[in-house]
Amino acid sequence: MDKYLELVEATLAEVLMQGRPPVLSEAMRYAVGAGGKRLRPIICLASAAAVDPGKVEDAKYPAAAIELLHNYTLVHDDLPAMDNDTVRRGKPSVWAKYGEANAILAGDALQALAFGVAAKAPRNAGRIVAILGDKALGVVQGQVEDIATGAKDIAYIYEHKTADLFVAAATMGGYAAGASEAEIAALGEFALNLGLAFQYEDDLLDGDYTYSREETERLARECTGRAIVALDRLGGDTSFLRNLAAKLIGRRK
Amino acid sequence: MDKYLELVEATLAEVLMQGRPPVLSEAMRYAVGAGGKRLRPIICLASAAAVDPGKVEDAKYPAAAIELLHNYTLVHDDLPAMDNDTVRRGKPSVWAKYGEANAILAGDALQALAFGVAAKAPRNAGRIVAILGDKALGVVQGQVEDIATGAKDIAYIYEHKTADLFVAAATMGGYAAGASEAEIAALGEFALNLGLAFQYEDDLLDGDYTYSREETERLARECTGRAIVALDRLGGDTSFLRNLAAKLIGRRK
Repeated sequence: MDKYLELVEATLAEVLMQGRPPVLSEAMRYAVGAGGKRLRPIICLASAAAVDPGKVEDAKYPAAAIELLHNYTLVHDDLPAMDNDTVRRGKPSVWAKYGEANAILAGDALQALAFGVAAKAPRNAGRIVAILGDKALGVVQGQVEDIATGAKDIAYIYEHKTADLFVAAATMGGYAAGASEAEIAALGEFALNLGLAFQYEDDLLDGDYTYSREETERLARECTGRAIVALDRLGGDTSFLRNLAAKLIGRRK
Repeated sequence: MDKYLELVEATLAEVLMQGRPPVLSEAMRYAVGAGGKRLRPIICLASAAAVDPGKVEDAKYPAAAIELLHNYTLVHDDLPAMDNDTVRRGKPSVWAKYGEANAILAGDALQALAFGVAAKAPRNAGRIVAILGDKALGVVQGQVEDIATGAKDIAYIYEHKTADLFVAAATMGGYAAGASEAEIAALGEFALNLGLAFQYEDDLLDGDYTYSREETERLARECTGRAIVALDRLGGDTSFLRNLAAKLIGRRK
């Protein structure tokens, strides 16, 4: 875990080096912060290990890319026209600190940087970028459905707003390690179910249920089980992903 | 010209097909519009022709990608926190028509789609995406410098806010057609100077001079000349790009 986290932080520091104008690169680094859980990039690295433990390093740029992309979505979600949040992780949100225009632009820049960084993967760069493009679009689709007035498709929102970036993380990591299509499918199934379990657990943590508490607990367990079973179809070292899935379910304890 | 324009419109229509939620895909298609000049994607296709006239079709996805990216920047530029424009091309701007949150998200989605579409290039997809990432970041850097208070670096703004997408268009088209690094360098020099000439011509059209009118005219001529000379280093059919550069200078007439 510590080794993965170190690789993620070092790669983020490398790609977020000082650039022009200073306010933009400062806002970008502030948005990506430090000391976060880095859940998505760690899933990316661990997915590479689940395919080929010798190829974890090859997934470092896709891992950084998914974290940049995740953070751009948070910067834009916080904007006054969206959730109007002035605080994120106990600190002023990007727009509260740098102004609304700079926050829009810092988010835009983080998304652009995410794709540029993903393209540095040493193999399957085209496929990796295609996945990131598809799931980055999916996140926005989920978000638009979420802010829509009228009846909402909760399953659609959970799959896209939450799980899509988990799926991108896992499958990009797999491709970076040279996974077969069968392994990519297994990683995709793992990550989709892990993402859904993560969302149900979030609902339980917040006490904000779409379904009843009992039904949400059942769904979280069911999805975690499916995620873990999918790992059996991978030939590398799946212990990290297995522990991660088991631990997510216990976040409340 | 008509053949290029047809290929651009057909590819944009293909990649902007109806998706979910309807309001998002409608806002995206509205933003990209129809009947525009499509200058950047046409430069992309013509740059492929300047390398290898038989490979123009291979640049259709990078061409569509640069137009999607250009239009996302316009959607975000129009936002209330930025230029606060309610009208674009004689019609309500995206935020004026669909609301601010949907406009932020439609812009985000167009950028994501741009990268996904660029990754479909049949060769050099990794390089093409890397260029798009670099220049998409550059556009934001130029925009942040432009909205900054205090002294501004005009040369920096012109190079990045305007010329970067011209450079991306030309070099992506070149890579899609299998260009050598020497040809990519020539296309980059052509497009940088064309982009700068375009910006000086814009200043002349608007009567909004950073430099004097005479100096701006001189700079526009000088950059156009440099753009045209760079084309001599390309082995394919450069007639289209040559005419385009000569015509841009005549926009005022």
